[in-house]
Amino acid sequence: MKALWLENQQLQLRTNLPIPQPPEGEALVRVVRAGICNTDLELLKGYYPYTGVLGHEFVGIVEQGSEQLAGKRVVGEINAACGECRFCRSGQPTHCEQRTVLGIVNRNGAFAEYLTLPLKNLHPIPDNVPTDVATFTEPLAAALEIQQQVSVGADDRVLVVGDGKLGQLVAQTLALTGCDLLVIGRHPEKLANLAARGIKTGLAEAITERSFDLSVECTGNPQGFAIARQALRPRGILVLKSTYAGQLTFDASSLVVDEITLIGSRCGPFSAALDLLAAGKVDVASLIQSRFSLTEGLAAFEQAQQKGMLKVLLDISSES
Amino acid sequence: MKALWLENQQLQLRTNLPIPQPPEGEALVRVVRAGICNTDLELLKGYYPYTGVLGHEFVGIVEQGSEQLAGKRVVGEINAACGECRFCRSGQPTHCEQRTVLGIVNRNGAFAEYLTLPLKNLHPIPDNVPTDVATFTEPLAAALEIQQQVSVGADDRVLVVGDGKLGQLVAQTLALTGCDLLVIGRHPEKLANLAARGIKTGLAEAITERSFDLSVECTGNPQGFAIARQALRPRGILVLKSTYAGQLTFDASSLVVDEITLIGSRCGPFSAALDLLAAGKVDVASLIQSRFSLTEGLAAFEQAQQKGMLKVLLDISSES
Repeated sequence: MKALWLENQQLQLRTNLPIPQPPEGEALVRVVRAGICNTDLELLKGYYPYTGVLGHEFVGIVEQGSEQLAGKRVVGEINAACGECRFCRSGQPTHCEQRTVLGIVNRNGAFAEYLTLPLKNLHPIPDNVPTDVATFTEPLAAALEIQQQVSVGADDRVLVVGDGKLGQLVAQTLALTGCDLLVIGRHPEKLANLAARGIKTGLAEAITERSFDLSVECTGNPQGFAIARQALRPRGILVLKSTYAGQLTFDASSLVVDEITLIGSRCGPFSAALDLLAAGKVDVASLIQSRFSLTEGLAAFEQAQQKGMLKVLLDISSES
Repeated sequence: MKALWLENQQLQLRTNLPIPQPPEGEALVRVVRAGICNTDLELLKGYYPYTGVLGHEFVGIVEQGSEQLAGKRVVGEINAACGECRFCRSGQPTHCEQRTVLGIVNRNGAFAEYLTLPLKNLHPIPDNVPTDVATFTEPLAAALEIQQQVSVGADDRVLVVGDGKLGQLVAQTLALTGCDLLVIGRHPEKLANLAARGIKTGLAEAITERSFDLSVECTGNPQGFAIARQALRPRGILVLKSTYAGQLTFDASSLVVDEITLIGSRCGPFSAALDLLAAGKVDVASLIQSRFSLTEGLAAFEQAQQKGMLKVLLDISSES
C-alpha cells in the first residue's frame, strides 16, 4: 500500500508497504480521509524520535476485525492502551504506560491506505456528519479536554492565544460554555472566521491588563506562552495545549508570586466531540484550507508547513 | 533606630533611621526576633528591585496603635492589602493589586528595631509558644499554603525536593496529612532531622521512577525542578514553592504529553500555622542554626548565605 513514512525527520512517499494484518482485538481500517496536524509538523522537526507512517487524524471504513462495525465509517482514538497498568485500571488509558500512539509512538499512522487500531478505540460516525467534518473529531476532542481539566463557566474571563487550527477549535468549544471569551492572533482573516460566529477577537497586541481567569496557549511558540502568562490575573490558570519542539524558558518566580497554575492538556473525549459535530454546534468546514491525494502527500506537507495555513486534508480513498 | 537596609543589592547596617510613625489603622511594633529567609537572600541577588529595610519573619511587641494588643507578642502577615480591589473583595488579600509587602515590596521590614503593620495583619502569639518558635509562623504558613491549593490525603504519594529550611517545614506539614511522603536532599544531617520524626528520606539520586502524585520543589534551583518534574506520574502535580532569581527552562511538550499541573505557591494562613505551633505538632526549634544581634546583621547574612545553612535568627530586643 501507499503511505507517508517518517524516518530521521525525513518524510517519504512509500508505495510498497504491506497492508497491515490486524492482531486479535484490532480492526483493519481503510483510510478515507486524513488531516495534517501541527504535531505532525513538530514530529518532522524532531519533537519526538518517531519512525513509521505518520498521521493520527482520520476517517476510515472498517474492513476486518469487527462484525458490528464492518463497512461503517469510523474515527479512532489514537492511544492504544494495554488495559492492565495502573493508569488503564484507573480509567486513564490516554496515559497508559505501555501505550502506542497512532502515527506518533510505535504505531503506524493514518497517512496510509490502511491502518489498524483496537476495536475499543473506534467510534462509528453519526450519519449526518460528513466525512470531511468527522476528520476533525480528534483535534476537537483535544480541545474539549480543557473542560475535563478546568471548570469553565459564564463568570470566567477566558483568553485563547492563537487563531490557527487548534485555536479555532479551542475557541469554539470554550464559547459554548458561555464564558467571557477573547481570542487573539495575528491573522485578521482567521479572526474574522471566529468573529462571524459571535466570538470576540483582537490582535495579539491588544492585551495590556492582567485580568483573565484562564488563558489557553495554542500557538506553540514562546511568544504565545508569554502573552498567555502575562494576561492572567493572580491565581489564574494557563492551559498549555500545544506541543513544542524545544525548550521553554520562563520566570518561575512570577509563577510563585502570582500563584499561577499551569496545566498541560492533550487528548480528549471522542464521544463528546462527535456529539458536538452531530449537533452542528461547532463549525469545522471553514477550517479546511486545501486537499491533496495521498500520492501528493509531500506537496500537502509543503503547504501545511507554510505560515498561517489552516487544515490540509488528504483524500485517500472513496467513502463507499 | 538601627536596621539592615538594602539598596542596589547592597546590605548595610544603618543606625540613625527614624522610628516609624504608624499611620491610621496600623500598629507600631517593637521587633524582638527575626529570621533570615531565602527570599531575603534572593532579594540581595536582585530577584526583585527592593530598596528599604529587609526582613519579613518576625516576632514583636505592640507598642502603639491598638489597645487590645498593646504589650502583647505578635506575628504579622506580610501583605498589607488595600481592602478595596477585586482581590481583596474576593477574599484574596495576599494578591491585592495595591499591596505592599513587609521587607519585600514598598514597605520597610523586620530587620529593624521597629516596624509598622496594619492591625488586621497582626496575630497574638499563644502563651505556650516560645518567641524563637513563633518566628517560624510566616514560613510555616507558607508551607501550609500547599494544602490550601491541593488536596493531599493518605492515598497520595508525595515527594518533597529539598531538605533546607523550607523543605523541612513543607515536609513536616505534609506528613500531618498521613500521605506517603518521601523527602530527598543532599544533606544527610538535615535528612536525619526529618527521619527522627518518622519521615522517609533519601538522597536526591534515589528517585528513578515516575510514580509520585505530587511533588514540591523547595530548592530554588533548576536541578531541583528537574527532579520534581521527573518524579511525577502522568497527571501529577508539581508545586513550586521557591522564588528564583533568574529564569527556568523546561520541556513544555512533556508537560503537555503527561498533562502535568504546575502550581506556584506563596503566602499561607497564619492562624493555622500558630495552631500547629501551639499544639506542638511541628518541630521548628531544631531548625535554628545560629543567632546574631542586629548590630551583627551583616555577619548573620554572611553565615545565612553559606551553603546548607538552616535558620539564622536575629535577636533584636528583649521580650518584655
